Amino acid sequence: RRLMSDGLTAEGKIKSLPMVYIKGEEMTRYAAQLMLENWLEPHIDTSAWEFFDLSCAARDASNDQTLKDAVAAGAKIGAIFKEPTVTPSAEQVKEFGLSKPLPSPNGAMRRGWNGVTISRDTIHIDGVELGFKSPVLFERHAVGGEYGAGWKEVGKGRLITTYFPDKESFEDGEDAIIVDARILDNERNVAVVYHNPLDNVEALAHHFFSRTLKAGVTPYVVTKKTVFKWQEPFWAIHKKVFDENYKAKFLEKGLLENTGGELQHLISDAATMQIIRWTRGGFGMSAHNYDGDMLTDEVAQVHRSPGFITSNLVGVAADGSPVKFCVLSCIASRRRRGVSATPSTCRADGVGVGATPSTRPCWSLRDLTFHLITQIKEFEASHGTVSDLWHQHLRGEPTSFNPLGMAEAVMGALSHAADLSKDEETARKTHEYVTCLRRAMHNTFKYGQGTWDMAGPSGLTTEQFVEKVGNRLSKYLAQESDDEFVDPSASKPSVLLRRAAKQVDTDKVQELFAEFDTDSDGSISVEEFTEMMIKLGLAPPKEPGKESASRAKIDEGA
Amino acid sequence: RRLMSDGLTAEGKIKSLPMVYIKGEEMTRYAAQLMLENWLEPHIDTSAWEFFDLSCAARDASNDQTLKDAVAAGAKIGAIFKEPTVTPSAEQVKEFGLSKPLPSPNGAMRRGWNGVTISRDTIHIDGVELGFKSPVLFERHAVGGEYGAGWKEVGKGRLITTYFPDKESFEDGEDAIIVDARILDNERNVAVVYHNPLDNVEALAHHFFSRTLKAGVTPYVVTKKTVFKWQEPFWAIHKKVFDENYKAKFLEKGLLENTGGELQHLISDAATMQIIRWTRGGFGMSAHNYDGDMLTDEVAQVHRSPGFITSNLVGVAADGSPVKFCVLSCIASRRRRGVSATPSTCRADGVGVGATPSTRPCWSLRDLTFHLITQIKEFEASHGTVSDLWHQHLRGEPTSFNPLGMAEAVMGALSHAADLSKDEETARKTHEYVTCLRRAMHNTFKYGQGTWDMAGPSGLTTEQFVEKVGNRLSKYLAQESDDEFVDPSASKPSVLLRRAAKQVDTDKVQELFAEFDTDSDGSISVEEFTEMMIKLGLAPPKEPGKESASRAKIDEGA
Repeated sequence: RRLMSDGLTAEGKIKSLPMVYIKGEEMTRYAAQLMLENWLEPHIDTSAWEFFDLSCAARDASNDQTLKDAVAAGAKIGAIFKEPTVTPSAEQVKEFGLSKPLPSPNGAMRRGWNGVTISRDTIHIDGVELGFKSPVLFERHAVGGEYGAGWKEVGKGRLITTYFPDKESFEDGEDAIIVDARILDNERNVAVVYHNPLDNVEALAHHFFSRTLKAGVTPYVVTKKTVFKWQEPFWAIHKKVFDENYKAKFLEKGLLENTGGELQHLISDAATMQIIRWTRGGFGMSAHNYDGDMLTDEVAQVHRSPGFITSNLVGVAADGSPVKFCVLSCIASRRRRGVSATPSTCRADGVGVGATPSTRPCWSLRDLTFHLITQIKEFEASHGTVSDLWHQHLRGEPTSFNPLGMAEAVMGALSHAADLSKDEETARKTHEYVTCLRRAMHNTFKYGQGTWDMAGPSGLTTEQFVEKVGNRLSKYLAQESDDEFVDPSASKPSVLLRRAAKQVDTDKVQELFAEFDTDSDGSISVEEFTEMMIKLGLAPPKEPGKESASRAKIDEGA
Repeated sequence: RRLMSDGLTAEGKIKSLPMVYIKGEEMTRYAAQLMLENWLEPHIDTSAWEFFDLSCAARDASNDQTLKDAVAAGAKIGAIFKEPTVTPSAEQVKEFGLSKPLPSPNGAMRRGWNGVTISRDTIHIDGVELGFKSPVLFERHAVGGEYGAGWKEVGKGRLITTYFPDKESFEDGEDAIIVDARILDNERNVAVVYHNPLDNVEALAHHFFSRTLKAGVTPYVVTKKTVFKWQEPFWAIHKKVFDENYKAKFLEKGLLENTGGELQHLISDAATMQIIRWTRGGFGMSAHNYDGDMLTDEVAQVHRSPGFITSNLVGVAADGSPVKFCVLSCIASRRRRGVSATPSTCRADGVGVGATPSTRPCWSLRDLTFHLITQIKEFEASHGTVSDLWHQHLRGEPTSFNPLGMAEAVMGALSHAADLSKDEETARKTHEYVTCLRRAMHNTFKYGQGTWDMAGPSGLTTEQFVEKVGNRLSKYLAQESDDEFVDPSASKPSVLLRRAAKQVDTDKVQELFAEFDTDSDGSISVEEFTEMMIKLGLAPPKEPGKESASRAKIDEGA
């Protein structure tokens, strides 16, 4: 059916682009294997993929060499998909019969790939409403904060922290600086020391503003700098990068209308409130490591659950090798769009190349530095290994695992592998494949054929869902009509809703109905509806955007 | 009308109990003055109150002596009400013409009153539904964390933190301990050092479990100890206090049914999610300082706004003087309830006296220690000075400030002053007064006579609301009938709703109605209602409590 063409193997599969595939554990490993067999292998040659097993058993058996190998391969190849893994607790070390404790693989990956940011964005399904109406983008600084803290529990006494500059600038040892000296007057104290490295904050800012600009959302930088004064540089670097490179483009797109035409800072505790209030979405936040940890989980919950946000580690190659990929990829991108691709005109569109792109060819040192930061990208789901479903599966019970987060991670890794490739035609085919796969999955949800969490008990099992998406994908790739396509009137959300209705407690719904049907005539009038919306706190106010003054909050320096 | 009796002055006012009253700034100062004149002064002799002015102008004029005096008075008296204050920014220092910057008063208060916890609980209005159905109680450790951090921005080099024990245990200087030694390899870094004092965590735990037990809610201890290992003692101390003193009572009350019969730990990032999900309320959380800062703002937003949560600093008297108050107050409490108050039977009910209270008279050292921790309590609203309304007021425009948070603070301070008093009869009268005031305010909201944020534009202005509550209060105190009492059928929430309806965008509501009225017959049937509830995510599921497995999240060590 398919014509042989560039970008395809003799078997008609899309040619293999180098990619790292990291296997994990439990339900997510099982579901990812189904996806691999049903969605990927029938259409894509995976011979250039490097597979690594980061299950506890494999890590233990290899003395964790498998983690080292995976990190090395990721640094070399740049596009990484990772299934959820388990970092065994002390009890699990015994339970699994491991020879010794295993650290979280995340630390090794963030170090090995020079992690700049963990991007965690809301995932949206066309035609299905989740928590946020429009995308929410998040950058969590991948380094610094209390994750790397040193500490000791100590008694009464003094605590002195001293900085010794590197020898180059050392003069008779007199350059030592007391960072902090304090008296501990409690019988018990814990002393905590950490540092925030700032060198990659500029890269983080470029990545953040590029993405928010491309997505058309308003950027906010989140810190507690009003009280934690050392967080000022995080904001200042963002502000500088923004004003020098992005402000004009954001203004042009009308994305700073709610922020007075300037980049807006948001205090971290205020951010916890806005995430709940701004359910329209359409914003981005860049935050320190721990704040990002807290706030992205909050975003996930407002959106629905951690199953509906991404988790992508963005790092930098240490040796600079990706530079050539960058330039070639940039040229390829121009060619694909039919634009002249002579070096002097080649540049990325509005991403990271500043307010006056025409003056900056993409291979200028500045742009290469920018492109460089997007080089290593590891894509994973934001949730864990879903133990409870795994144990159901092991007991032979049917399960219905929603693979949305993992599917987005696979698609992200494939797309990034294509972006890094010099093989234009294969890259184009890969991007097309990803588009088809995403559409196949979204339509399967939209047509009420989703997993139980989306479609109710009449939805599909883990295996059925993957197969259904796989069938639809094959048809879309072959440009065949979608036999299962539900006619438009029936494909409205109501189909999904009717299916979901089956898992609703109808008695309780009836009770609620009776409560809102105040004249008990068996139906809810417009007036009753209005009362109901007010009572539910869902009534649109007359003057949107106007705040109740009593809600105003002043940060008092806590 | 009132008969002279114990606890009243010759003028029929409630006798004065010592209390500290701290004035602040802007709209909240204005509204508090109205409350003082309308609610308090007509019924309570305030001659034993000590007033302090912490406006920027007064602090500046007194070289901040007014803050020192307020803190000293608070430490002596123990019951403190504080209006919101302004900590001037660099711009405000110029704008207000201050001679120098003024620090936040909070730091001085937490130190001066040996702050243990900042209790921040949801405020509920009888008959009016807010965000959480049942109370949410929160303890935020009042000390430790990054608020007291030392820091410096430094370049490449080494950072070494050393602990020197107090001289008593110093042996030849060899006891110095390296807490942390690290290499800084970035060109720019910020080094951050702080310590968490642990001595008062036991008192915090007692306070937390006493309150959650009394309120009948399930306690959770929130930390990031899975990654931030130094947070383990915070949990361990809570756990020990709980198991030794409270567990049996919580089990008896059925409050540990959702937690497997044990005190439950919650990871901080998971807490950001549960706060959104547990809208039924009925839980309490105890957390470190910064986590508490973030999470209580989130609680406030879910409940409605910072105007609907309390903010009470609980501290400890340094000199131990309140002990005698404690015992007397305890005896008084027994007498009030007609229970024999001989020392051997006197004890607090289920609060802080352990699982076997009959074996522990309340003047045992243990119980005194416990009572002691509740000695100094400062009550304030959780919101700021509401500048925007203040400027409206200054322009002569009508305002409608909802004083709920400040009113709860005043009532809290009055109640605490009564609890500390040796004058039983005055204490009883004061508690009665507080009950009447709270009822007067709640009924005013319930009868649709609230401020605009609650009752819509037909609600009352700042002045009208305070006066209305004041009138109602006078009637309640005189045990007169409530002329304005709305008959029960009309006093249902629908009155409030109809008033609120006036500020709703009816066009948009109509649009929404049309969307849910899928057969366009002008009313919403039970079936349409069911679909709507599903679409809004409000449909009660068949098996409550059963989680969608795909939402499971494993903390991976971040």
